[in-house]
Amino acid sequence: MKLHFLGTGAGIPSRQRNVSSLALKLLDELNEVWLFDCGEATQHQILETTIRPRKINKIFITHLHGDHIFGLPGLLSSRSFQGGVDCLEIYGPQGIRDYIQGALKHSKSKLSYPLKINELADQGGELTFDNGWQVKYLPLDHGILSFGFRIEEPDLPGQLLVEDLAKFNIPSGPIFGQLKRGERVQLEDGTWLDGQDFLAPDRPGRVVTILGDTRFCQNSKRLAKHANALVHEATHEASEGKMARAYFHSTTHQAAQVAKDSQAKVLYLNHISARYLGKALYQLEKEAASIFEKSHLVNDFDEFEIPLN
Amino acid sequence: MKLHFLGTGAGIPSRQRNVSSLALKLLDELNEVWLFDCGEATQHQILETTIRPRKINKIFITHLHGDHIFGLPGLLSSRSFQGGVDCLEIYGPQGIRDYIQGALKHSKSKLSYPLKINELADQGGELTFDNGWQVKYLPLDHGILSFGFRIEEPDLPGQLLVEDLAKFNIPSGPIFGQLKRGERVQLEDGTWLDGQDFLAPDRPGRVVTILGDTRFCQNSKRLAKHANALVHEATHEASEGKMARAYFHSTTHQAAQVAKDSQAKVLYLNHISARYLGKALYQLEKEAASIFEKSHLVNDFDEFEIPLN
Repeated sequence: MKLHFLGTGAGIPSRQRNVSSLALKLLDELNEVWLFDCGEATQHQILETTIRPRKINKIFITHLHGDHIFGLPGLLSSRSFQGGVDCLEIYGPQGIRDYIQGALKHSKSKLSYPLKINELADQGGELTFDNGWQVKYLPLDHGILSFGFRIEEPDLPGQLLVEDLAKFNIPSGPIFGQLKRGERVQLEDGTWLDGQDFLAPDRPGRVVTILGDTRFCQNSKRLAKHANALVHEATHEASEGKMARAYFHSTTHQAAQVAKDSQAKVLYLNHISARYLGKALYQLEKEAASIFEKSHLVNDFDEFEIPLN
Repeated sequence: MKLHFLGTGAGIPSRQRNVSSLALKLLDELNEVWLFDCGEATQHQILETTIRPRKINKIFITHLHGDHIFGLPGLLSSRSFQGGVDCLEIYGPQGIRDYIQGALKHSKSKLSYPLKINELADQGGELTFDNGWQVKYLPLDHGILSFGFRIEEPDLPGQLLVEDLAKFNIPSGPIFGQLKRGERVQLEDGTWLDGQDFLAPDRPGRVVTILGDTRFCQNSKRLAKHANALVHEATHEASEGKMARAYFHSTTHQAAQVAKDSQAKVLYLNHISARYLGKALYQLEKEAASIFEKSHLVNDFDEFEIPLN
């Protein structure tokens, strides 16, 4: 499980940062990539990575501002041009369907794969997928409806305690698999073993919280509760609290306060204004770290592994 | 007058070529930049140039395929974000208004400047601007309506023949201006001079022809007649005539034939498939040059001055 930041800027693209997009790479877990927001030229950013558009099978849109959605029609079309056939599901606020269908209709784009567009409930909700993964979402505070997403991995079955089994001289073969599944097996010498006795406890699944643009708000904390990783915007420096409020954005301090209050493990700050360059970026990170130590200000193409619990 | 190629690829962006866009820079002539097509990430390409989005006051769209229009909403929004106030006019096929208005509406984008969207007549027509510039357009052959544009500069008034005036010892001052305007003036010694006698003939304005995606067709030649510069797509190599026809595109030979038949001065080949790299590009140019000598295969960011007649 990796977070791969594709666009970390605010509002408009700059030479340093593209507009918003973030890939949650679940290659080891599901062989899938989930995208969060898709600003213009997200597909161009992807060209600079090893991500294959065909692997992207879910796209979550936090809100409908242009810097979060104007890359969707192009990405969808190119995925088709490249011969993608697997279903792609999009989740976003009311209006996302009309926006996408309008762009595809006017450009006469026909997709080579099924596209399912799911409009989310304004008040928030929960998505449960067949594989046990869940995505909870709540509205934040951004003037227009903007969602935060809490992605929950299912608990992982405890691993087989191979060392404890060493003394039984079990031949390599199917017995290990049966024990791993918690079944009872009889060895050649007649001994019965119960798999349950040789399994470590279940390991809790990881939680990643990815928030859309927002003011400091309570729902951010609900979504980020004990998260392994929290992605929070930091459009403004700490001293610009008034401006952040006026424009429905957050400061570094506010993002860090959410991470602290929700006892998240790591905070990634994105949606960085193009005004901040060089030392100023270091300063932004320092501001956040003064409240929540594990704060990282991220740049385009930064990639972070989310360790197992 | 310069042609500045911003995106010279076909269909989807590659690391070498972005999707379609071309700036006609009329900075010396009108202090304006006219854009032809606006594929996704055109605004990103512009960031790598000296072009200022505020200077772009006209955008012409050849056709509504995504690789020619998906950069419009972002460019329009960013021009506003940067505080542009001057009117922007867009010219394109029926449907361009709904496409743009839909994207701006769903993304809640409010522009800081007046936007006028002009839908062009399917059968072609002529636009005449206050400053005397004209743009003629005709439908080409691309499966969906795709226009070619012929941009005509007004004739330039002949220059004052300063050398012929030397013997009259005219003092510097307003007399030169009067003669330049072709007026009659009396010198201090009583001599009458007629400006008309000291003006070189009018210099014909230049013609630039920019075609949308198309098969080989007669309207291309009409639009390119005696053009100072012709921009023609060359999606396919010469041997792929059948494929070009099937996909409503052109080969290098076909583009060159249009340039030859219309007696254009220079041919710029764009809309180059990402399949062609390195030596293959040289080969494409050579194919065209075998029919029309002054053929140039263009790359992103290539810039060409169109010399005066």
